[in-house]
Amino acid sequence: MVTEMNADDGIQRIPVEALASFVSDALVKCGLSAADAAAAAELITEADLIGVDTHGIFRLPQYVNALRAGTINPVPRISCVREAGATAVVDGDNGLGHLVVAFAARKAIELARTYGVAWVGTRNSNHAGAGAVYAAMPVEAGMVGIYAAVSGSNLMAPWGGAEPLLGTNPIAVGIPAGEGAPVLLDIATSVASFGAIKNHALQGKALPVGWVVDRNGQPLTDPARAGEGMLLPIGGHKGSGLSLAIGLLAGVMNGAAFGRDLSAIARDAKASNSGQLVIALDIGRFMDPAAFTATVRRHLDDLRRSAPMPGAGAVRIPGEGRERRRQERLAQGVPLSNALTAKLDDLSDDLQVRPLSARGA
Amino acid sequence: MVTEMNADDGIQRIPVEALASFVSDALVKCGLSAADAAAAAELITEADLIGVDTHGIFRLPQYVNALRAGTINPVPRISCVREAGATAVVDGDNGLGHLVVAFAARKAIELARTYGVAWVGTRNSNHAGAGAVYAAMPVEAGMVGIYAAVSGSNLMAPWGGAEPLLGTNPIAVGIPAGEGAPVLLDIATSVASFGAIKNHALQGKALPVGWVVDRNGQPLTDPARAGEGMLLPIGGHKGSGLSLAIGLLAGVMNGAAFGRDLSAIARDAKASNSGQLVIALDIGRFMDPAAFTATVRRHLDDLRRSAPMPGAGAVRIPGEGRERRRQERLAQGVPLSNALTAKLDDLSDDLQVRPLSARGA
Repeated sequence: MVTEMNADDGIQRIPVEALASFVSDALVKCGLSAADAAAAAELITEADLIGVDTHGIFRLPQYVNALRAGTINPVPRISCVREAGATAVVDGDNGLGHLVVAFAARKAIELARTYGVAWVGTRNSNHAGAGAVYAAMPVEAGMVGIYAAVSGSNLMAPWGGAEPLLGTNPIAVGIPAGEGAPVLLDIATSVASFGAIKNHALQGKALPVGWVVDRNGQPLTDPARAGEGMLLPIGGHKGSGLSLAIGLLAGVMNGAAFGRDLSAIARDAKASNSGQLVIALDIGRFMDPAAFTATVRRHLDDLRRSAPMPGAGAVRIPGEGRERRRQERLAQGVPLSNALTAKLDDLSDDLQVRPLSARGA
Repeated sequence: MVTEMNADDGIQRIPVEALASFVSDALVKCGLSAADAAAAAELITEADLIGVDTHGIFRLPQYVNALRAGTINPVPRISCVREAGATAVVDGDNGLGHLVVAFAARKAIELARTYGVAWVGTRNSNHAGAGAVYAAMPVEAGMVGIYAAVSGSNLMAPWGGAEPLLGTNPIAVGIPAGEGAPVLLDIATSVASFGAIKNHALQGKALPVGWVVDRNGQPLTDPARAGEGMLLPIGGHKGSGLSLAIGLLAGVMNGAAFGRDLSAIARDAKASNSGQLVIALDIGRFMDPAAFTATVRRHLDDLRRSAPMPGAGAVRIPGEGRERRRQERLAQGVPLSNALTAKLDDLSDDLQVRPLSARGA
């Protein structure tokens, strides 16, 4: 979920280098090696750069709490526990999900170079932030990237049900487009992401009808009561089915948690045993990559130049906004709300790392 | 034997063997070999068995018309034009999509046995009926199956746009569940499929708000005017992005048609150059397949037994209804509306094949 902030509602622009060094220092204080902390910091703040504000540094306090509580392992030995042909299973040893999924994505790229396609799953992983970051890794290598994940908590009911037994299990797809911004789709299978709802709650804004229902199926719009409700899936039974399929493929098939097992983990404050999957696909096995990206660009231009819906502004191409935000934020800094900055200041006190205000460009 | 289910609802029950022999005979009259006709008839009527009524024998007149007009090739030489490692591209030589995609699915299963995962694309294909049929083929082999396709016509606008440049590009996912019905999701990326809208039009029923909008974004509920409107994607920009990603991967990457190229093809009544993709995945590379299906069954039981939403009837597990319908229709026959039976009678006159009523069990 992309949340753009307005210039006038109490935000500060922070250079991404300052964010990354802050995150890295905080993670080192939690016991990560310097190399792992730097790698995780880059993956976390990449989400901030591309505008997935709910999945970047916003989540740092949650990661720090879990590392200090021992529910995330600061010194994981991430490894391939199964590898055969074009598939692999990565055991994250309960490390930060960012490190685990980046490992899996690198493995998928390596295998896809050999076999044309690769499917790599993770187990004993954790929350990995923004899926777009990992779908983009094969794209950097000129490949198609697909990422999907089991969410750590169940916020959605299966269609026809009134118990939240499914996560908002997201899927991200990255497709190279040559010189233009790649197609980079990153969507939860719910109408609204939990992050978007948290943001509404933070700002005291009513939730649109169609985001959340109560246990009787009635719309729930009070953001303070969102926790009592269940997120609605996209397309009703369609999003519910997609979430289930992702849960079985990214979770169960990897030996990771899904369904009621997730509730038990949450109740016992145990390691999350998150599961993700990364697919990498070598376009050159299908057609000349340059011809492919040229054709993609032609079609994207057709969409971009097609008649807009009155009032909609512009035709939305997934990934264009991310690339635009990335360039803008690299140049102008990442906008952080004052509320988030205050939280991060508390964290800096707590961990004894230099505050953001003391890091600067 | 043809039996009437209920005297008052204009439905007849036809044994699936009668449907299949009718389809096969009709296709032979259009120039297909006996073997191809029988294979296509089985794939077409499988959609009727599992209840995808808009994608089975309902489409036969359309296929016959295209075969007679020469826009579908009755004697295609379907072949792998590229095969390297775990990927392949199948050229359908403009044959019936059913034959082309079944060829691709068999190739994907064969490659996945060797490499663990396989991704096979098609070009110069045609409408292939119900995606669930092809996602189920790897499932029969104990594998996960994924199918996606570019729709032959553009009925959906990209999000923010008012020109229909995207298809309802469907995705189907099949996941083995041991002795129980497999998970078998088959969804268009639009809220409603074109078939569902056709069905409403046939019955003169108003379209629900949220299915179709006009070029100003206003709801269009008159089924007779559906052709003027555009289908809405599931989850707004999310379904639009999914449709785009499927179009680029199942279409452009395979050298098949997408976007404005589809409109040109339709205008010139040329061969459709449809594209599809099939992924097969060997579960045994990830975990013991029996342990996998046992865990899937446990989770499906959890969902099935969870609290239902008041008024919803039951929790919906994708694939359960299909399996139930399949068993019921195998035993009781496939229900055909009198309107459809009349159309098929016309076809039997036209092609000089024995009518359904003369084919017994």
